[in-house]
Parts: sequence; C-alpha cells; structure tokens
Amino acid sequence: MTDDHRFELFSYWRTSATYRVRVALHAKGVKWRETNVDIDAGEQHGEAFRRVNPLGGIPALIDHAESQSHLPLTQSLAILEFLDEVYPHPPLLPADPHGRARVRSLAQMLAADTHPLITPRVRKYLAANAGFDADAWRAWQLQWFGTGLRAVEQRLAGEAGTGRFCHGDTPTIADICLASIFAVMRVFKIDVDDVPTCKRIVAECEQLEAFAAADPSRQAGAPQP
Amino acid sequence: MTDDHRFELFSYWRTSATYRVRVALHAKGVKWRETNVDIDAGEQHGEAFRRVNPLGGIPALIDHAESQSHLPLTQSLAILEFLDEVYPHPPLLPADPHGRARVRSLAQMLAADTHPLITPRVRKYLAANAGFDADAWRAWQLQWFGTGLRAVEQRLAGEAGTGRFCHGDTPTIADICLASIFAVMRVFKIDVDDVPTCKRIVAECEQLEAFAAADPSRQAGAPQP
Repeated sequence: MTDDHRFELFSYWRTSATYRVRVALHAKGVKWRETNVDIDAGEQHGEAFRRVNPLGGIPALIDHAESQSHLPLTQSLAILEFLDEVYPHPPLLPADPHGRARVRSLAQMLAADTHPLITPRVRKYLAANAGFDADAWRAWQLQWFGTGLRAVEQRLAGEAGTGRFCHGDTPTIADICLASIFAVMRVFKIDVDDVPTCKRIVAECEQLEAFAAADPSRQAGAPQP
Repeated sequence: MTDDHRFELFSYWRTSATYRVRVALHAKGVKWRETNVDIDAGEQHGEAFRRVNPLGGIPALIDHAESQSHLPLTQSLAILEFLDEVYPHPPLLPADPHGRARVRSLAQMLAADTHPLITPRVRKYLAANAGFDADAWRAWQLQWFGTGLRAVEQRLAGEAGTGRFCHGDTPTIADICLASIFAVMRVFKIDVDDVPTCKRIVAECEQLEAFAAADPSRQAGAPQP
C-alpha cells in the first residue's frame, strides 16, 4: 500500500469540521481519496454510510494502514492531533507545553464552544420545538458566531503569543479552527463585525495553498458560482 | 517554589469543565490551591476575576511556574492535555496514535458536541429570545445529554477498544469527560436511560479517589445535603 491509498475521507463540501481535516491533510502533504456524503440529502443516515461510520457523522477518516478495527477516525480535533502525531512535519502544534495549551485552548473555543451550537441537528430541534423560522435561526447563528469570535478576538488582540498566525508565525490547529468558522460563515452569508485580528489571520491563512485548496467553494458538490 | 504552590485553579463546585480539571490534578498527584468563583452570583464577570482571566470563564488554571504571560490556562481539554504532557504518569492518553485518536474522539463527543449546548449562556439566550421556561429548558437538557450519551454508548458498547474504562483498563481523558457529564446531570437531577455501558464505566471511575474527590458534592460551596 502506498501512502496515496492510506486515507479515505468521508466529507461534504460545506461543513466546517471536514474543512479542518482537509486543511491538515493538505498541510502534511498527505494524499487521500475523498467520498462525498450529501448531508443535505440525509446520506449520513443511510445504510451505506452507516456501514462506514455507525454514528452517521462526518468527517470520518478511514486509515487503511490500520486494518484491525475498520472503524474510521472521527471528530475533527482528534483527527488533527492524530495527523500531527503520525506526520510531524510541518507541525500543527508548538513544541512547548504552554504554547500547545494556548493553541488547543483557542481551538476549543472555536470547535467546542462555538461550532456545535450552529449544527443542523440544533436547527432542527429549534424549528420543531421552539418555532424558529429562518430569521430566528439567523439571529441564533449571529449570536454564537459573534460570541465565539469576539472572545477569540480579545485573546488574539491582547496576548503576546499572537503573531502572523494565532500563535507565532506558522499555522497551527487554532488557525485551522478559526479559518473553518469563517469558511462556514461565508457559506451561510454571515459576517461578524469588530474581529479585525481574526480577519487578518484568516486572510494570512488563505494565502496558503493548504487552506485555499480546502475551501468549500473548491470542493466537489459545491454550488456553481 | 514547591510544586504545592505551582497551580491555582479558579473553579466552581458544580461545573462539568472544572470537575474534569480537578480529576486530572488528583490523578497526577499534583497539589493546587483552589479559588471559588460563584458563577451563580456572576462573579466570573466581576472586575476581580477579569484580572485573572479577561474572558471571565472557568476553569482557569494559573501556572506560577510560567511567569512570563500571567495568563491562565483555559479550556478543560487543553488543560488535561497540558497536565498529561507535563506530568506523564499516570498517563491519561494511550501510547499509540490510533488509541489516542479514539480517546480524544470520545472526549470531543462529550466535551464539544454535548456539553456546550447545556451552558448557562445558552439557557439565558433561549429564555430571553425563545420564551424557554423551566420545562422547555429541561426538555432541551434531556435532548442533548441524551443525544450525546446515546452516541457514546453505541461506541462503547460496540467497539473492541472498550475495557473496564472507555479505552482499555485504565482511565483516560475520555473517562474524565464521561464522568463529568454524569456529575453535572446529577446536579441537575437529570437521568438518561439506555446507556448501560456509560453507567458501568462511570461507576468504575467513581471507585477511584481521583474522581470521587472531584465530585461536585464534595467541593466548597456545594449545597449541604
């Protein structure tokens, strides 16, 4: 087996969490096959995909070098840490424990405190049980994207660790999470004001091919402009 | 400075995320000072605590051995990884990358996909903007605790990696996250049916002094029984 065939990513063009995995795979220079799971059509709940990931979620990354379990790697941050351990160069975490803690903390503020509130299952619940229409959902999205990004902005603007990227001058998993939030906001045509440091850093990220190639607009299945 | 004075944890008796940090500190045999931040009284937004953590969140762990930044470590999973790097024994993650990915994935399902939906700021928003009363909030809590735990149950019951604990026979950050959800459900007097493997593992955890000592009921500020 060559490295070209080691990984198979089950993904969808517009999801924030699969964007993160795509950036990391690109950054590490790993080649992979990608299989589209149309979550707008409910394919993640279908029998075919349940055979891949019984929980029905994406991203799911099959590692064909690990033949024992046949289970996919799941949860974007767990996958990013895995890729960083298995392919150490270029690193996606700093070398020192305090730096690593800062990067992981920023990543969690985005991937844990912010993103899970904006997912389709939450929208479905609020529509069915709290009468949320499109406007109420948009206000909800703005509330939590705004809360999360303004908290991250306060840190990035005020902390000495910030550099060209969230932590120093090379991209880390914090940048991947930050850019993933902006990628999905763009899909939803949502903007958040007063986060200039976040926007400066995302612009830096998008200069890099690993981030640009992972953009939702460049994936199979994305709407034509 | 002795290790006894290295760490200062800003915490509150009933929060799930500070419970996680307390378990890890106990498990590593690290001593620390603890300062109570009464989030029911809004102390996290007060000027005194903002000088400790400008973002006003707990847990916040000051490492007095890191004199440069004066910033606390934040986000429970980032703190757990930090403690595991700085105090490697006993390990809170397995040694192999696939095992580590499985543990981190389970941890994220609980700490990222489940817990952020049940936080006070979400309750406040839903009360103010969607008319959520106590019953609607309770239904919301049940929905997301149930969704999260049933997904974890499916994995724990079906995957070969599960042992006495979530992964093998020693506790990891996945167990800490799992027990943290049950600890906070108990505070809210909420139960979830049909998760027998989760409950078996939490009972195993609570046999261990590191988990028992971190229980909300045993912290300063907890209501008297």
